[in-house]
Amino acid sequence: MKAEIISIGNELLSGLTINTNATWIAQRFKSIGLEVHWITTISDTANEIEYALKTASNRADVIACTGGLGPTPDDITKSIICKFFNTKLILHNETLEYVKKIFEGRHLKMPDININQAMVPEIATPLQNPLGTAPGLQFEINNKLFFFMPGVPHEMKNLIDSYILKKINDKYDLPEIKSFIFRTTGIAESRLLEKLEPVLKKYPEYPIAFLPKFTGVDIRLIQKSADDSFSHYAMEIKNSVNKYIYTETDDELPAVLGKMLTEKGLTLSTAESFSGGLISDSITNIPGSSDYFIAGVITYSNESKIKNLGVDESTINNFGAVSEETAREMVIGVKKLFKTDCAISSTGIAGPSGATDNKPVGLCYLAAIYKDKIVVRKFNFGKDRRINKERGATAGLELLRRLILGL
Amino acid sequence: MKAEIISIGNELLSGLTINTNATWIAQRFKSIGLEVHWITTISDTANEIEYALKTASNRADVIACTGGLGPTPDDITKSIICKFFNTKLILHNETLEYVKKIFEGRHLKMPDININQAMVPEIATPLQNPLGTAPGLQFEINNKLFFFMPGVPHEMKNLIDSYILKKINDKYDLPEIKSFIFRTTGIAESRLLEKLEPVLKKYPEYPIAFLPKFTGVDIRLIQKSADDSFSHYAMEIKNSVNKYIYTETDDELPAVLGKMLTEKGLTLSTAESFSGGLISDSITNIPGSSDYFIAGVITYSNESKIKNLGVDESTINNFGAVSEETAREMVIGVKKLFKTDCAISSTGIAGPSGATDNKPVGLCYLAAIYKDKIVVRKFNFGKDRRINKERGATAGLELLRRLILGL
Repeated sequence: MKAEIISIGNELLSGLTINTNATWIAQRFKSIGLEVHWITTISDTANEIEYALKTASNRADVIACTGGLGPTPDDITKSIICKFFNTKLILHNETLEYVKKIFEGRHLKMPDININQAMVPEIATPLQNPLGTAPGLQFEINNKLFFFMPGVPHEMKNLIDSYILKKINDKYDLPEIKSFIFRTTGIAESRLLEKLEPVLKKYPEYPIAFLPKFTGVDIRLIQKSADDSFSHYAMEIKNSVNKYIYTETDDELPAVLGKMLTEKGLTLSTAESFSGGLISDSITNIPGSSDYFIAGVITYSNESKIKNLGVDESTINNFGAVSEETAREMVIGVKKLFKTDCAISSTGIAGPSGATDNKPVGLCYLAAIYKDKIVVRKFNFGKDRRINKERGATAGLELLRRLILGL
Repeated sequence: MKAEIISIGNELLSGLTINTNATWIAQRFKSIGLEVHWITTISDTANEIEYALKTASNRADVIACTGGLGPTPDDITKSIICKFFNTKLILHNETLEYVKKIFEGRHLKMPDININQAMVPEIATPLQNPLGTAPGLQFEINNKLFFFMPGVPHEMKNLIDSYILKKINDKYDLPEIKSFIFRTTGIAESRLLEKLEPVLKKYPEYPIAFLPKFTGVDIRLIQKSADDSFSHYAMEIKNSVNKYIYTETDDELPAVLGKMLTEKGLTLSTAESFSGGLISDSITNIPGSSDYFIAGVITYSNESKIKNLGVDESTINNFGAVSEETAREMVIGVKKLFKTDCAISSTGIAGPSGATDNKPVGLCYLAAIYKDKIVVRKFNFGKDRRINKERGATAGLELLRRLILGL
């Protein structure tokens, strides 16, 4: 069983819009055991759409098409579809009622142009779209499935999740998928591989995928028609690198830490210099974070480190603002200032300027405090300012996670 | 002149990686007047690569291919290229020396496997890659140009910008492009269109493209072989909505504001609740921001607003933490606390929880202060927490930009 995604849209070809839709669909299809073999991006022109449909119908079993379904004259997909499937547009009353109701729900009169939305190829099954006015279309021909969807991401996603995945699953006998995810941080891919080597040698028949990002490496194990032995394999993988795994779900680290703080009834504050506010930004992205996040400071100037956090002036004079000692006094100071149970601090040289002979760009000290336990660690990140901030923020959150768990 | 992009990589088809490379290349090609008509994403398998090359060479003049050029056995592109172009791999000594030097620069001995990197199709021109060990490849056949590049984004980008665009420009007589960008914020696309209508009616022959994002709308005007009249059109567009335009470059708002502060020798601090650190994060993304950004606080709790910023307890009791009055006292307080020339504050309900009968999710008060001038504005954003933070942060920065400029 092979799938093809056809993305229609001039904005995708002119460099204005990144094709995130195709990636999302590929991921969803993969989750039910259907592999995407081709993603074809074309312009909104008759010839291209016809050619792409012909090519796809010759090689794929499931064809998912997005874009070009709106009511305006430049949305020509529907008439081309009719030509391709040798059918014609008819007024689909049920769809017309549905589209009218959408406008009623918005307290608007339906503009006449939207009658076009209810014109549907005769042999198609319209897929009602509660989030927009263009219905999706489904064709079932020669044991193949064709889906046409609007290009608006949330409309497309809703059609896939509420209907299309189930339809594909019902029609075809897809292999059952068993999958594990272990999200790690604070360890390089090559070091992970070293630690996992004995397990990988023991189970040479099973796959492993590493997804390295600047802020960590995700390990994914996916197997079709897996048995118990695959689960044992996954557990041995997990146990070999457990310290570095912050979650076995799709959650990000700030959500994982937030859940931990909530469960333990702990409060948090931050004192950032190197990370410039990114730690508190990532914490406050999590709904409900106001329950545990009390406050933070970004102390970019030395004076603010001294005056607002109580860092000793002599510490900065003797060791510098970028030092283990300053990171330590910052984290102690901010915990005291906001009377929290835990705190994180960062100081360093994010770059590109600010480096000295002894202190290169990317040098960073992070500290975490949990009740009376403190840990301070030195890092050498890279040259890119934003990536440095991201790595620093992640490492700071992870430092606290491990401190609380005693890892 | 038509271009096709072929993206090779299983990770692009499994939903793990978004194809940002193709979008970037399309944008760059467009900037020199070369339009991308197809983006074809395929797996790293011989049949698919051959088929895609054949299809592309039948319809496109310039074919840009990324991925599959590494030294490991699963990178098969090079041998397939040889088959397709009916040529063979030879050891290219100059490339070997180049790759060796790359390893020397990293103080490493070159592993033998990297000799493969210097094996180059006999009829190709290797494109030396200073950022990685896999050279790019160029073929010039039947007045068509084929480029093969590594999939690593910064290596690919460097090859395009340092060599490939020039090569394309030299070989073909591309239409000259004249383009303008006006980046706006604080005004909806429909309102922009209203204000621009007279100009658009006056110059019906010229195009306009709106790029709406959550945080603003970019206006792009692009014309091939443009004359003076096109420049007049652009100036009239600009003058019609000048207040909302924060830049005529690709810069982001924090960079624009940072430049203004630097030029005027002004300092800045922030007091964030609604935006949770995102304002200071976006300010500190800018290299050199430590010259004007002194410090910030994220006061999530009421107590921290009162104790650390000096907001009057009775203000919060009478008007609430989410109020015009609190935003005003926060911005005055933080300016005083850190002795800066300017400051920005935010307070609101980012959601999804925290709403009351009178104060819905998305309600936000932003304040800016510049010397003795203060402005406070009320906003009603939407339901999504992260988008609310982004819109709030952008609106806060823009409030200060306009206050300083007296707009």
